[in-house]
Amino acid sequence: MCPPLITLTTDFGSADGYVAQMKGVLRGLVPEAVIDDLAHDIPAHNVWAGALFLEGAIPRYPAGSVHVVVVDPGVGTQRRPMVASWRDRLVVCPDNGLLTLLWRREGAGPIYEIGLPCAVPGVPKVLSATFHGRDLFAPVAAFLARGGRPEHLGSPLADPVRLPFPEPLVLEDGIVVGQVIHVDRFGNAVTNMDRQLFPPEAAAGAVRIGLERAPEKEMEIRLVRTYGDIQPGELAALINSGDRLELATHADSAARLWNIQAGARVILRAVLA
Amino acid sequence: MCPPLITLTTDFGSADGYVAQMKGVLRGLVPEAVIDDLAHDIPAHNVWAGALFLEGAIPRYPAGSVHVVVVDPGVGTQRRPMVASWRDRLVVCPDNGLLTLLWRREGAGPIYEIGLPCAVPGVPKVLSATFHGRDLFAPVAAFLARGGRPEHLGSPLADPVRLPFPEPLVLEDGIVVGQVIHVDRFGNAVTNMDRQLFPPEAAAGAVRIGLERAPEKEMEIRLVRTYGDIQPGELAALINSGDRLELATHADSAARLWNIQAGARVILRAVLA
Amino acid sequence: MCPPLITLTTDFGSADGYVAQMKGVLRGLVPEAVIDDLAHDIPAHNVWAGALFLEGAIPRYPAGSVHVVVVDPGVGTQRRPMVASWRDRLVVCPDNGLLTLLWRREGAGPIYEIGLPCAVPGVPKVLSATFHGRDLFAPVAAFLARGGRPEHLGSPLADPVRLPFPEPLVLEDGIVVGQVIHVDRFGNAVTNMDRQLFPPEAAAGAVRIGLERAPEKEMEIRLVRTYGDIQPGELAALINSGDRLELATHADSAARLWNIQAGARVILRAVLA
Repeated sequence: MCPPLITLTTDFGSADGYVAQMKGVLRGLVPEAVIDDLAHDIPAHNVWAGALFLEGAIPRYPAGSVHVVVVDPGVGTQRRPMVASWRDRLVVCPDNGLLTLLWRREGAGPIYEIGLPCAVPGVPKVLSATFHGRDLFAPVAAFLARGGRPEHLGSPLADPVRLPFPEPLVLEDGIVVGQVIHVDRFGNAVTNMDRQLFPPEAAAGAVRIGLERAPEKEMEIRLVRTYGDIQPGELAALINSGDRLELATHADSAARLWNIQAGARVILRAVLA
Repeated sequence: MCPPLITLTTDFGSADGYVAQMKGVLRGLVPEAVIDDLAHDIPAHNVWAGALFLEGAIPRYPAGSVHVVVVDPGVGTQRRPMVASWRDRLVVCPDNGLLTLLWRREGAGPIYEIGLPCAVPGVPKVLSATFHGRDLFAPVAAFLARGGRPEHLGSPLADPVRLPFPEPLVLEDGIVVGQVIHVDRFGNAVTNMDRQLFPPEAAAGAVRIGLERAPEKEMEIRLVRTYGDIQPGELAALINSGDRLELATHADSAARLWNIQAGARVILRAVLA
Repeated sequence: MCPPLITLTTDFGSADGYVAQMKGVLRGLVPEAVIDDLAHDIPAHNVWAGALFLEGAIPRYPAGSVHVVVVDPGVGTQRRPMVASWRDRLVVCPDNGLLTLLWRREGAGPIYEIGLPCAVPGVPKVLSATFHGRDLFAPVAAFLARGGRPEHLGSPLADPVRLPFPEPLVLEDGIVVGQVIHVDRFGNAVTNMDRQLFPPEAAAGAVRIGLERAPEKEMEIRLVRTYGDIQPGELAALINSGDRLELATHADSAARLWNIQAGARVILRAVLA
């Protein structure tokens, strides 16, 4: 039998010790578990960045895994702590939209509010008003990793917070107007345009893609297969490993070189027959 | 039975491979252990930052855990390598004050100097003069994790280095003058003023707190419960998860917006009856 | 029996989720494995930095360990995916020179190209053209960690890419001209000059070392044992834990204070008798 598997994703950084404290609590409660740090450098308070992260990571983890996610600017207020089931994985996090993109891919499973006070072992009588990751989410994850059932934690949560997703606009003439939604470590600019917008033959370059540089001023860019196909000094587009259109350049940061930020408009003009 | 549990905390960063080398040594010596990275981005050479980190992290880890801490500007000099027992946890580190704040919370347990040469398996005959983390502390941690006894490593160390802690000044008229001792990733400014200075009713806002902006010029700030209670653009104070007074703002960096650095003076004027 | 041991080294950072996705794949395929993150902040696209990292880390890991390394600017192009055996460790990575320095220390062992398509469990039918770390290297590592044999993955790879190593120049008059090849987190500047260039007595300071500041203008520096021997404001040299000459200063960044970058020339003038 496999040991329980718990992952941690936060915007805490590591140097201040918040993550270390959470791990210490988990090690004390569920010493047999495997604990994976996924990331602790989600941009501070950035729930949207957390949602994008989880969309890629959670589906890759096996069924039965328990995921603690703490990007929690509303800690200690009326925002609700919750446990969400998603395709046999469990996510313990604040109800602030972190699961928006997972739910968009494949509808939400059962969600439970973690009722307070919480009688799970390891939860102190008085929670820190500023650190539920340590005092609530970690003990709850330990409880779940040992087979505890989410429905024992509280009532169903029927109306979880969802963030608005900026869907691409499909205009009447077939033009699609998308936008950059994330810039990664390499300076690659990920858009909201899914692979489905591009028929398979499009991979051969049979599309016209533009990056809007100013109103009615557009820079045309090639669609290529992979980074190595891009020429030095060229801005190009490809379908990335998350099945989204992404702007990139050769061995450098496209975002920096072309000053591309989240919100930049990317236009799909035509799929050439 | 639980596997041995070892944690690593350093100022090495990860990209240069120093931590990887330590982990490789540990995996070879004690493959059955669980190894947790706590942080490797303690500010370089900053023993004080390491001490603050450990104060929060070590008590959260279960009894029996072994903690390797390498913030070690004096490596290879006369500074002594040591193993300290603290509430049934063992810490392997240089004798340079890293445990100061743990000892302040709850007195020091037995401490042993690691005698050189050290006959523990995995310690090379000639130690690198610049990397005791790999050549000495990691093998010693493996030895301890397998049940080796600290007293077999060397003689008791009676006079460990302690860093001075800047205690708040309590003036005759009841005014308390504290200071900022740490700024965290979020830009929250942690002070040296403990929760005990604030009676329970103070949480309701019944105190007057000031941040000194210039000699005799003070900015009054509210005491609130949690980050979500702070207004946009407001600087406020709260009792943080480490039981210290902390200055923070709404979804932004208080340290940056109000230019608060370690050493900034924070004044508790009165607890209103 | 020990569980399988897999390590991960990449230039992915952690915040974008690429590493989390790789770990999720591994946890699903080989849940019994121990997985160590070594570093994910290798400078982007910097194969040379990856090679330096591996030179120090891989030899410290025990025989039988499996190492996934993804610094892979050529992903999806003709560059070959490979598995290399090195002193009973296995490294799964692109064939782009990452193992250059390991091979320089102790010749290459058997190397196999990972043939495509790859029938190993967990490899999707269509690989992402931009993320072989997740779709190919992680499943292959799981296969190897469970005892799969490298030769079942593809054909021997006889001509792996090797990066040129900048060997120090030994001039006729015995002068050795080396250079800085890496600056670490502390601002220490590591050179290409190995310990063997310095006879044991050299540790006592019996050498003359210079840092070239301009053509024919040189700054003489002392050879010391360890960082603590360096005076405040002094630039000195020592033999570091990787057995290379390194320039450092007292509790600060030598690279910043003396503006030392990779390529800076370091001259060994004489070993005094």
